[in-house]
Amino acid sequence: MKIDNLIDFIDLDEVVNLTGWIDNIRDHGGLTFIDLRDFTGNIQLVYDKSLDVNDNLKNEYYISISGLFKKRDDSLINPKIFLGDSEIQVSSLEVISESKTLPFQIENEIDTDENIRLKYRYLDLRRNSMKVNILTRSKTFKSIRTIMNNLKINEIDTPTLIKSTPEGAKDFIVPSRKSPSNFYALPQSPQMYKQLFMMAGFPNYYQIAKCYRDEDSRKDRQPEFTQLDLEFADANPEIVKTNVETIVQFVFQDAYDCNIQTPFKTLSYTDCINLYGTDKPDLRIKETLIDITDIFSNTNINFLKNIIDDEGLVKGLHSKNTLTRKQIDSLDSEIKDLGATGLGWLKVDSGKISGPLSKLLNENEISKILEFGEGTLLFQAGKLENIAKYLDIIRRSIFKTSTDEVYSFVWIEDFPYFEYENDQLQPSHHPFTSPKDDDVFKEDPIKSTALHYDLVLNGVELGSGSQRINNPQIQKIVLEKWGLSQDEINERFGWFIEALSYGTPVHAGFAIGIDRLVAEVLNQPSIRDVIPFPKTQSGHDPLTNAPANIDEHTLEEYNLKYINKDE
Amino acid sequence: MKIDNLIDFIDLDEVVNLTGWIDNIRDHGGLTFIDLRDFTGNIQLVYDKSLDVNDNLKNEYYISISGLFKKRDDSLINPKIFLGDSEIQVSSLEVISESKTLPFQIENEIDTDENIRLKYRYLDLRRNSMKVNILTRSKTFKSIRTIMNNLKINEIDTPTLIKSTPEGAKDFIVPSRKSPSNFYALPQSPQMYKQLFMMAGFPNYYQIAKCYRDEDSRKDRQPEFTQLDLEFADANPEIVKTNVETIVQFVFQDAYDCNIQTPFKTLSYTDCINLYGTDKPDLRIKETLIDITDIFSNTNINFLKNIIDDEGLVKGLHSKNTLTRKQIDSLDSEIKDLGATGLGWLKVDSGKISGPLSKLLNENEISKILEFGEGTLLFQAGKLENIAKYLDIIRRSIFKTSTDEVYSFVWIEDFPYFEYENDQLQPSHHPFTSPKDDDVFKEDPIKSTALHYDLVLNGVELGSGSQRINNPQIQKIVLEKWGLSQDEINERFGWFIEALSYGTPVHAGFAIGIDRLVAEVLNQPSIRDVIPFPKTQSGHDPLTNAPANIDEHTLEEYNLKYINKDE
Repeated sequence: MKIDNLIDFIDLDEVVNLTGWIDNIRDHGGLTFIDLRDFTGNIQLVYDKSLDVNDNLKNEYYISISGLFKKRDDSLINPKIFLGDSEIQVSSLEVISESKTLPFQIENEIDTDENIRLKYRYLDLRRNSMKVNILTRSKTFKSIRTIMNNLKINEIDTPTLIKSTPEGAKDFIVPSRKSPSNFYALPQSPQMYKQLFMMAGFPNYYQIAKCYRDEDSRKDRQPEFTQLDLEFADANPEIVKTNVETIVQFVFQDAYDCNIQTPFKTLSYTDCINLYGTDKPDLRIKETLIDITDIFSNTNINFLKNIIDDEGLVKGLHSKNTLTRKQIDSLDSEIKDLGATGLGWLKVDSGKISGPLSKLLNENEISKILEFGEGTLLFQAGKLENIAKYLDIIRRSIFKTSTDEVYSFVWIEDFPYFEYENDQLQPSHHPFTSPKDDDVFKEDPIKSTALHYDLVLNGVELGSGSQRINNPQIQKIVLEKWGLSQDEINERFGWFIEALSYGTPVHAGFAIGIDRLVAEVLNQPSIRDVIPFPKTQSGHDPLTNAPANIDEHTLEEYNLKYINKDE
Repeated sequence: MKIDNLIDFIDLDEVVNLTGWIDNIRDHGGLTFIDLRDFTGNIQLVYDKSLDVNDNLKNEYYISISGLFKKRDDSLINPKIFLGDSEIQVSSLEVISESKTLPFQIENEIDTDENIRLKYRYLDLRRNSMKVNILTRSKTFKSIRTIMNNLKINEIDTPTLIKSTPEGAKDFIVPSRKSPSNFYALPQSPQMYKQLFMMAGFPNYYQIAKCYRDEDSRKDRQPEFTQLDLEFADANPEIVKTNVETIVQFVFQDAYDCNIQTPFKTLSYTDCINLYGTDKPDLRIKETLIDITDIFSNTNINFLKNIIDDEGLVKGLHSKNTLTRKQIDSLDSEIKDLGATGLGWLKVDSGKISGPLSKLLNENEISKILEFGEGTLLFQAGKLENIAKYLDIIRRSIFKTSTDEVYSFVWIEDFPYFEYENDQLQPSHHPFTSPKDDDVFKEDPIKSTALHYDLVLNGVELGSGSQRINNPQIQKIVLEKWGLSQDEINERFGWFIEALSYGTPVHAGFAIGIDRLVAEVLNQPSIRDVIPFPKTQSGHDPLTNAPANIDEHTLEEYNLKYINKDE
């Protein structure tokens, strides 16, 4: 039997065949009404007692029906819903598959614990809001592939049982049964392989790739995520950025029916931190940080004086709104929880300055602060690298995003090559990134910037990329400056330096996080809502109960045994 | 600088900019000739001593040049090669990246050990024959995605850190750092998740998915492989087969420029074994097995008599060629190595029967064998399930494939549901396959057939699929008949049986092995030749040296330690 499709229904008074779930069933004085739900929508079914059907139908039974597609009686027309003017007069109804009692209702808005939703994800995905999420993800894949074909970029796939690569997170490892004490790693990204394609003579590459990072509970991360991965030979950052803009613009038009403007704005990392306190600024908020260090150049306030004497800054944000004490206290405790010493604030209300420090202000300070006019000045004092993140939080808390643009894209570039993490020099991104100037790098790597560029959408890092090192000597120097020994370099990167040594094109690339993109476009609270079968924040799958115990005997086949650290 | 593209060259006497590798460099009395190789082809460069260039250029240096694209002197035209009538008069040449001395030449035909080719895979892929392989793979992806869009099949992705699923091979496992003694498994296929999509209300699904099987050195397998994975709701085998035929036909036309006929032939498993000795028959060989048991119904040959009395068969193949003793001996030892007792043979040459058994034949046997005419009769005696695979080998050895069809597709169906493996009942495919008849299955599962169908191309299994069980009770019975305890069923499949219990559509699907498809179409000796970065047969990667040792200290983070089984 050919199954018809709700959205193809045009002609009234024709017999149609449908399958779907019982969304709702009601008995009205001998007439039974069913809302039948399929992939394309809902339609009302109606039949009377003369029809011989299973009289124990329940919600979510999957049924197959035939009937006459017809106009409803005028009194029953519901103009608010799709197909609300029509119904199907059922002539036969067969139950394909029964349903147990549901753990939650299949409705758009539900107030169910996420663990329960994930345990019954196949039911959660029946809800229309989740269906839209997954289909938008699917449309994103489709649009990406269309524009890749238009741009003649080749899809090539990379291995996923690989050698450990350094991308900043811990690897997921895969023991080799056949080769005791040896392990594969799952790729944190296809980085080295896509560079190998450039060395192998392929002028470009794309892949929608699964990447794996074993991270300790960073906010809204998944152990596996999906990225659009790109690489181009004979390329530089401008070529890559133009290509990425073309791709993003196309996907927004094709998948999301949304017209965005290109080229995107560009900001340097330094300007970005100065203006927004973060390298992931939400530019829909127009207000920027202000430097008020000068106001306090002769201050009597001791802690500010000490900070300024120690080359620190006083930076803040001014709101024309008079914030309530409750708002200020809440923000104060939010940033304190993250490590700030506290929120500095001064209010100007009816020409009068209030706030904990107001009594300590000198005349010059008072006059400068009054110049801001009515409102609230919130500030932080210290080294910029220490206070930036609190200023970012304050900015995003007290100002609203402008409504005149829905999607605000910005390129961030000129990142420092290295950063200190736990007192250790670390490449800010990855060690295959080309320094902006090789000579500067060799002389003082900590002052060197990287040919790295991030793409930020509405305060969310959508993707990042870089010019790659194509010279084996420079690659070696970068690894040395990072602090690796010759043995480590040879053991971990020897094969890659070797690969660079046979005539390597200039090349550059990019990667876009697809989970993040779809979540942002759909304004979802978490990437979990746009991934068909995600893990919880702790990496657990409530549906299958993965990861699961493997008994000692099975584990022996992999030449491994457990350590009980508690012993 | 915009880099031009060789294949876009049309107008002579224009200045062009190119990058590429030095394929070859020759000095001819003051003139230097370079064959420059880029992604699109080769072109001859020429310059004289007046040009100021690095005079130490070598093969595989990556260079950037400008010059005049012009016609060669008539005497230098090579009509046999693309662009052999033209060259570039170089006006500037810059070395982008030097090359060390090569481990092997970048030529189409090389006689280099595969381990060396894999160690320098990025150089191996520069060879034109390998470039064609990888690009054909890429075109396959592209054509698949095009036809999926045409058929409105949604690409949806499935998780790859999952719970162990039963697909016949061992799992690759991934220890969870955060959850001691617990492991994810890598999917042997997306089987259960694609079924969940059907339960979740998505009417169809496709994905080009990486699958992982830890198999003990079966011929030409890879620990990870790539498959086109499909599933359809409200579907039956006929719908799936028609869709697969549409897809395969489109891909052959679009990616391989090859017109194939549909619908494909269909054979039952039983007929297939009877006619070809295998469920993966190469139908380009027209000759089939013949049953000669009747000839020996009153035989004096003891071992044949015993076999026939024990309900065994005598089956063979007749070639009109008189095989040499050397051919026969070689085939005899080939099948003996695989476990056969030996090759039975009788030759008819100039009306005379020869062969080891010829003296033992009775009159009736002699007359029947002479009826075959001149040639060689090769045979095996025993239970069909024991002798089939030797008959298959004999058939493929002694007969040629017909040249009138390049690609011969055939559906195989009606497989037995269960088979015995090491005396244990095992589902021939996977336990989510629907029995052809539920009642027959419940009564005598070993006699039951499965709604499973394989697609075979030229003797290679290209893909397989089945109708799935959509009834939780039947699913449970199948697992019970397989021999699983209630505890095992609950622990391993409880969540899946639960998922089937909320109104599950009838559904069916398929998967096509892409590595195998591309290798077959390109007539390559191994799937390794069509995978960009494959592993060796033993799962080793000579390029990166994966899998690699992880030190005990790092392993401790995963709550694991090694067992040395030799101790």
